[in-house]
Amino acid sequence: MAAKGFQLYDTTLRDGTQQEGLVLTVEDKLAVARHLDAFGVGFIEGGWPGAVPKDTEFFRRARTELPLRNAQLAAFGATRRPGTAVSADPQVRALLESGAPVVTLVAKADTRHVELALRTTLAENLAMIGSTVRHLVHSGRRVFVDAEHYFDGYRANREYALEVVRTAAEAGAEAVVLCDTNGGSLPDGIRETVAATIEATGVRVGIHCHDDTGCAVANTLAAVDAGATHVQGTAHGYGERCGNANLFTVAANLVLKRGLDILPPARLATMAEAGRAIGELTGRPAEAAAPYIGPSAFTHKGGLHASALRIDPDLYQHIDPAVVGSRMRTLVSDMGGRSSIELKARELGYEVTAGSEPVARAAARIKEMENRGYSFESADASFELLLREELYGYAGDGLFAVDSWAVSVEHRTAVTVTEARVRLRVDGVPLMAIGRGNGPVNALDRALHQALDPVFPDVARLELADYQVRVPTGRHGSAGPVRVLATFTDGERRWSTVGVDENLVAASWQALVDAVRYTLLDTPAPARLTVGA
Amino acid sequence: MAAKGFQLYDTTLRDGTQQEGLVLTVEDKLAVARHLDAFGVGFIEGGWPGAVPKDTEFFRRARTELPLRNAQLAAFGATRRPGTAVSADPQVRALLESGAPVVTLVAKADTRHVELALRTTLAENLAMIGSTVRHLVHSGRRVFVDAEHYFDGYRANREYALEVVRTAAEAGAEAVVLCDTNGGSLPDGIRETVAATIEATGVRVGIHCHDDTGCAVANTLAAVDAGATHVQGTAHGYGERCGNANLFTVAANLVLKRGLDILPPARLATMAEAGRAIGELTGRPAEAAAPYIGPSAFTHKGGLHASALRIDPDLYQHIDPAVVGSRMRTLVSDMGGRSSIELKARELGYEVTAGSEPVARAAARIKEMENRGYSFESADASFELLLREELYGYAGDGLFAVDSWAVSVEHRTAVTVTEARVRLRVDGVPLMAIGRGNGPVNALDRALHQALDPVFPDVARLELADYQVRVPTGRHGSAGPVRVLATFTDGERRWSTVGVDENLVAASWQALVDAVRYTLLDTPAPARLTVGA
Repeated sequence: MAAKGFQLYDTTLRDGTQQEGLVLTVEDKLAVARHLDAFGVGFIEGGWPGAVPKDTEFFRRARTELPLRNAQLAAFGATRRPGTAVSADPQVRALLESGAPVVTLVAKADTRHVELALRTTLAENLAMIGSTVRHLVHSGRRVFVDAEHYFDGYRANREYALEVVRTAAEAGAEAVVLCDTNGGSLPDGIRETVAATIEATGVRVGIHCHDDTGCAVANTLAAVDAGATHVQGTAHGYGERCGNANLFTVAANLVLKRGLDILPPARLATMAEAGRAIGELTGRPAEAAAPYIGPSAFTHKGGLHASALRIDPDLYQHIDPAVVGSRMRTLVSDMGGRSSIELKARELGYEVTAGSEPVARAAARIKEMENRGYSFESADASFELLLREELYGYAGDGLFAVDSWAVSVEHRTAVTVTEARVRLRVDGVPLMAIGRGNGPVNALDRALHQALDPVFPDVARLELADYQVRVPTGRHGSAGPVRVLATFTDGERRWSTVGVDENLVAASWQALVDAVRYTLLDTPAPARLTVGA
Repeated sequence: MAAKGFQLYDTTLRDGTQQEGLVLTVEDKLAVARHLDAFGVGFIEGGWPGAVPKDTEFFRRARTELPLRNAQLAAFGATRRPGTAVSADPQVRALLESGAPVVTLVAKADTRHVELALRTTLAENLAMIGSTVRHLVHSGRRVFVDAEHYFDGYRANREYALEVVRTAAEAGAEAVVLCDTNGGSLPDGIRETVAATIEATGVRVGIHCHDDTGCAVANTLAAVDAGATHVQGTAHGYGERCGNANLFTVAANLVLKRGLDILPPARLATMAEAGRAIGELTGRPAEAAAPYIGPSAFTHKGGLHASALRIDPDLYQHIDPAVVGSRMRTLVSDMGGRSSIELKARELGYEVTAGSEPVARAAARIKEMENRGYSFESADASFELLLREELYGYAGDGLFAVDSWAVSVEHRTAVTVTEARVRLRVDGVPLMAIGRGNGPVNALDRALHQALDPVFPDVARLELADYQVRVPTGRHGSAGPVRVLATFTDGERRWSTVGVDENLVAASWQALVDAVRYTLLDTPAPARLTVGA
């Protein structure tokens, strides 16, 4: 079914960041927006300019740093204050100054909230909605109105809730988004209210659900069934309390179960990848059991199913996992591993086949390393080193050898001093270097540069651009493996490496050494050592 | 509404254990069953005796070690093999020998599965169902039949699917449970098929859903709306792939949203406690955002809401959290300001007002610290220390002083040795201690315990339970602030602290010291030092 004009609206960067523990920098938000745009959502709500300084900054930088292919940026904000002129409201001005082509206004639709939280009259609330929408529309913005607590409001005072919808639409709002703000609704109630609202007002409505009854996805679908043509959600269902409707699950259900073409062609197959990339940025990957794209979503364990799965996987799968970019796994087979290694290797320019010996060896090593906490998904450079070791028996590791390293951190009278010593050999010649830094990784990084920069000009250009620490699941206390993911740049390209060890410093060292090895992949062994050490 | 005879059926111990990574011992299973019974489910499916040795053992031990108050035990198994007499089938005999008063048989309801997976005729499959049910009923068992892949089967061959239901019921099955085995259904499809099945057969039906479309809870409710009076689910939604319907969420929705009395009186208020206890046993606690009982389920962050929350929490909550044994929490974040600090402080038992001087000072400090990368959202203990400093000018920091600390990490010939030294003063007396660990934080933790355990018994109980590293705001390379979030336990309570520094080790040290200070909040200064150092 064609879904012309159907609006898929992401609010990860605004409502999603209300999730406990989710804190995004402006840099993170720009990167998340790029992934959402590439995935194909129609609207990306970037934040609340004027109210949150970081969000003001986001919209400022977005103007030059965020060329979007599929999406339009939306700024979120409130209607003007009670009793003031809309043109004099600084918050409304900030929405315009954000430069976002779309503005989404939150408006109270529940009389209790108007009176208790907003502390104004019902009439003034309607006037605030009307004048703010008109002002923004006259200024050339597309406007959506989020009708907050709509479903409670509709139950308490049906006429007033409908009047909010009519007022917003008459003032020029493109759609009025009915919000189940406290998340307490069930699908049947949502369906009835959405249908009745459309019937009574004729207005284009959207839906915004929270997961407090575990029904956010079903509630969203129920609203679409009842006629809503605009759906809001967040990546991985991030959001306050129990989270928002999971935009990925909603999108897959609408495309695969309802036959609605709500994404640009072929984008659904990139969903798992988009989910992984966003999870890396937020530090909150998809739950293992997340529908469609969780690592376990198509993972079969039951012995009951094992033989039938061999006959026909479709007997036990509701969709082909590839359709959303996921894959079937059975917990006894590594066949999936080999195919994805083949895919990844070809992507990097290596001609290999899944059935070949080197790929089998790489698959076995990766499987064993993943059991110890490694993850190669975001560490292309470490993966490529491993692959070349299996293909050619060599991957830049003959150019230098590590004899030992050490780091000391000393704190006394409010001053912390960190020093690293590394002992390497290049072409058989010992090299020793010392580095000071503001932390153990920084100190090791500097010591490594101190030793190798004079010998290898490529290493001199190597710069650590990002550094992340992850604690793989199941870790107890400070004893257990930690994973370090480091991203480097030579000023042009960027590549990432991974290290795992019980010792955070040792894990970081692995990632640093992998980065140096990767830098030297195309460097011939030095004919003679040109540095006096 | 009374729900006499409504059956709440738990399959955590059978279908739930199909979840990736979930492994339970017999001991664990007995303990989980006790918690499920105390919570008030009507049936506990213990496993598959005869097929899984651990499950045979579970039922054997359950006879003496599992006195149940509310629930009956159910043994899960298959119908007899094709072409054999039911009395000669060893697997059916094992079901009887398990001693379970209830037997739940899985039966194929989809012709494709009968032919491809079971490899028998459609007629023989019906005969297998009929004879096995009759045999068990004649042996005095209550029998349920799980109609596997019912919804796909109904779509493919409606008449055969209905015939399976009729055959099971006519043979004496108490209810036929319609299973969405591959989890691909949506609520509207479930509702229609359940209603049509009841209409066509007049049989009592149950529902068993999986979460592959993110709709397992809504699907279960839709089935109940259509007339199902038996619902199956698992604790926390454990299960294969995306998991089963979350029994806790389903139960709360049925009681609170549908008004069905499906639990013994007053048991719903123990749900959060039951969920925690089961999560401890399985090692898989509720997701933070799990409806009703996740730690974040009633947690508020937005500054938009904070002031309104003070007026009336019900404005932003769909139910009173106490009804399910949960509680409201507010987070301290850059969006909240003084109102959320007041709310948080009151939650911790301090009588303060947003307009007071100490709250203003705390707000200013928090804002300044957040700019440097701190986040107090998940660090209640560090927040409380800061609050007490502003309220009383003191927060346990006079009990010991830190003179210096140092950590060294040395790597040589594939061995990494980490050692920490701390120099403290307690009551003016210097204390020095050394700790070795598998990383810098572990080593510092041990050195700190080495020094303080003999003096402060409360510190001896302090254990680091979780440790997370985040790289906040616009960090570039290995030079920039890192945030450490550490969670501690004394065996009963848990609390979290935060540390921020350019140096990861220094940030970790702050979090460790905050944890010790928090532990000592109610400890009077020691009269004399009882340890020879």
